[in-house]
Amino acid sequence: MFEKLRGVRDFYPEDYHGRKKIYESLCRTVDRYGFKEVCTPSIESLDIITKKSGDAIVDEIYAFKDKGGRDLCLIPELTPSVARMVVQRQKVLTKPVKWYSLSRHWRYERPQKGRQREFYQFNVDIFGSHSSRADFEILACGIECLLDLGLDNFMFHISDRKVLESFFSGLGISVKDAFNIVDKRSKVTEDEFFEMLSSIGLDEDWYKTLIEMLDINGNINECIGEISRISGDLDQGAQDALENLRQVGELLAYYGLEDYCKLDLSIVRGLAYYTDMVFEVFDKKKSMRSLFGGGRYDNLIGLFEGQEMPAVGFAIGLPMLEILMKEEGIWPEPDFGPDYFVVTIGDVDDVALKIIKSLRKDNVVEFSYGKKNMSNQMNLANNLGAKKVVIVGERDVKEGKATIKDMVSGEQKVMELKDLLE
Amino acid sequence: MFEKLRGVRDFYPEDYHGRKKIYESLCRTVDRYGFKEVCTPSIESLDIITKKSGDAIVDEIYAFKDKGGRDLCLIPELTPSVARMVVQRQKVLTKPVKWYSLSRHWRYERPQKGRQREFYQFNVDIFGSHSSRADFEILACGIECLLDLGLDNFMFHISDRKVLESFFSGLGISVKDAFNIVDKRSKVTEDEFFEMLSSIGLDEDWYKTLIEMLDINGNINECIGEISRISGDLDQGAQDALENLRQVGELLAYYGLEDYCKLDLSIVRGLAYYTDMVFEVFDKKKSMRSLFGGGRYDNLIGLFEGQEMPAVGFAIGLPMLEILMKEEGIWPEPDFGPDYFVVTIGDVDDVALKIIKSLRKDNVVEFSYGKKNMSNQMNLANNLGAKKVVIVGERDVKEGKATIKDMVSGEQKVMELKDLLE
Repeated sequence: MFEKLRGVRDFYPEDYHGRKKIYESLCRTVDRYGFKEVCTPSIESLDIITKKSGDAIVDEIYAFKDKGGRDLCLIPELTPSVARMVVQRQKVLTKPVKWYSLSRHWRYERPQKGRQREFYQFNVDIFGSHSSRADFEILACGIECLLDLGLDNFMFHISDRKVLESFFSGLGISVKDAFNIVDKRSKVTEDEFFEMLSSIGLDEDWYKTLIEMLDINGNINECIGEISRISGDLDQGAQDALENLRQVGELLAYYGLEDYCKLDLSIVRGLAYYTDMVFEVFDKKKSMRSLFGGGRYDNLIGLFEGQEMPAVGFAIGLPMLEILMKEEGIWPEPDFGPDYFVVTIGDVDDVALKIIKSLRKDNVVEFSYGKKNMSNQMNLANNLGAKKVVIVGERDVKEGKATIKDMVSGEQKVMELKDLLE
Repeated sequence: MFEKLRGVRDFYPEDYHGRKKIYESLCRTVDRYGFKEVCTPSIESLDIITKKSGDAIVDEIYAFKDKGGRDLCLIPELTPSVARMVVQRQKVLTKPVKWYSLSRHWRYERPQKGRQREFYQFNVDIFGSHSSRADFEILACGIECLLDLGLDNFMFHISDRKVLESFFSGLGISVKDAFNIVDKRSKVTEDEFFEMLSSIGLDEDWYKTLIEMLDINGNINECIGEISRISGDLDQGAQDALENLRQVGELLAYYGLEDYCKLDLSIVRGLAYYTDMVFEVFDKKKSMRSLFGGGRYDNLIGLFEGQEMPAVGFAIGLPMLEILMKEEGIWPEPDFGPDYFVVTIGDVDDVALKIIKSLRKDNVVEFSYGKKNMSNQMNLANNLGAKKVVIVGERDVKEGKATIKDMVSGEQKVMELKDLLE
């Protein structure tokens, strides 16, 4: 038998139904924030991808040459393509640019639960604003995306990379190395964590200070003051970052969403392109499984040879939402039964098709393609899960009537044809 | 500047808006016929594509090896993937299987107007019915897809390959060669057409008969009788085909769509996989430009090692619909102006954000991310095309009020905050 490739997915109708409902819900949410939908190509020049992620990414993606010898690839994420689109029209776009997209991505990696070679992500980004209000909108919008899907057992852990950046660089420690280690904290023992940090030059006193900072974990507005108290002197960038976080926390509280947010400086997001505010969303139920994340990436547009332009956004993986909604029992199950199934007895195609056309104005209507007897047709109506059956028989038609049967209650009633045809 | 690849398309919001409206309209139409949406992967094993189209197609598509050395490709059309999906679940699927899909395809060919390297098609198929009623449903559904988009200047030219198959094979002429020539009729002179047919063995008398048959061009029910009169003896297959066409024509008339259909035996559709009823849709305005086509392909599922299963369907290219709708002036232009833009004066974020949240339940609401003065904010509201502006000022807020300005009429009214917050 011919088979699909490993790590890709066939969506049969029952699978696609829920996926589309999720997409529609996400669109409704972000539309209300004024985001506009865009769509990028699935293939790009390879250099657009390596420009953002470095050459090493080539080993993890579908890269190939086209017949003209050009290096291209299936896009492994949306951001480079969107950045390219922004740069192309940077001068004429009304700022801030607020875009979203559901897009298909490909990575050549070992398939596992929730991680396929072909996968779908929902991206939301704001370009052109430095403001804490843009940070707030991205967070509020991300929170409401989940709430509108019926999910509420999650927590947004929010930080700003500038705080720990200032802390480590003030001590003369490589920020990149330090962030790589901080990112691994939950995966190693406390001793190992200390060893790793010690090896890049953090002494025991500063280690204790760091741990105190990383352990801050609570309401943004309540915790923000603690940071400067613990950390000691912070440079201007970090102080601005704290003020930004304070404003974000305030706006989230005004907006009534602060209960879904925590300050958590241990969130640094390994990805090098984030610059300031970062966040990661965790499932409160399943031992803090990470759901998705986002943040500010003010340097990316410049990297793509555009004028420097601040940006903030997030990407949600749809497989993750599907797993979560199924666990919560809120995955939208389809009801594929047609509203009407039209059964014909004898030579009544003329009338039956006129009834079908009339009902199809507002309803899903099916009928048997084979010329079967009445009980065959009723069986098919049943198998399809039809809600009502219209029985069009020769004798009834002569009297200008047809019978409607409610397939749930079993009730039958005779109707005037002219009413059915209106 | 980084650029997109040649032959692919960036959809900016104003482009994507219309594309999505088309998709939504197509979905609404086919949903009412009881079709269910499916989604296939974008990558497939190369052998699935060559199985249907032959090895020569490899030169026209994006085919490459993955890191495991497997031959794969970006799908150039949907049918092979859908056939694979049907075969995989052939035993458990309720027949007839009625599926649709909007999918992205790739072909490596010279880009031109309406023909890109990355393109979108809407596919609709019925698997599991031999019946003229299934043929009818595909035709009716295709017609209504266009009508529901607001298009009505088109004609479905319908034929059945079995008729000319019988004619040519009865004369001992290669059907494949003959169809290739018939397909080219509109592109060559009459003399050339005769020369070509003559070279594969058609004599002048039979040529005249053929031309008479090809020139039949009118209402199916009126013309169907002429065919047997002109053609002389037809084999059983052709006679069955004519009977099927007669039934299809009758059903289309009952359904009120016969004015959009013509019998036209010159439609043979070069593609080898069609077996019986075939159709091609033409624009009546622009010298009969071909819009899309479809037909019956009863052998494909067998080819994919499934049990033989009849199938009928069509595929519409979205770029073609876009060109057509733009020409007709019915392309859905977006109105991206938010329903409300909230302007703040002074320290009123608390109230302003509560108003925004409340209005966002049912409306698109935006506000300024920068802390600008009132005239800057009004300008932004104007640039965004906001329909109404809510002005939240410190003094008003103290009195429990806010002002709403209608940006079209210029009218202003003062509202109670509590009404805005409900």
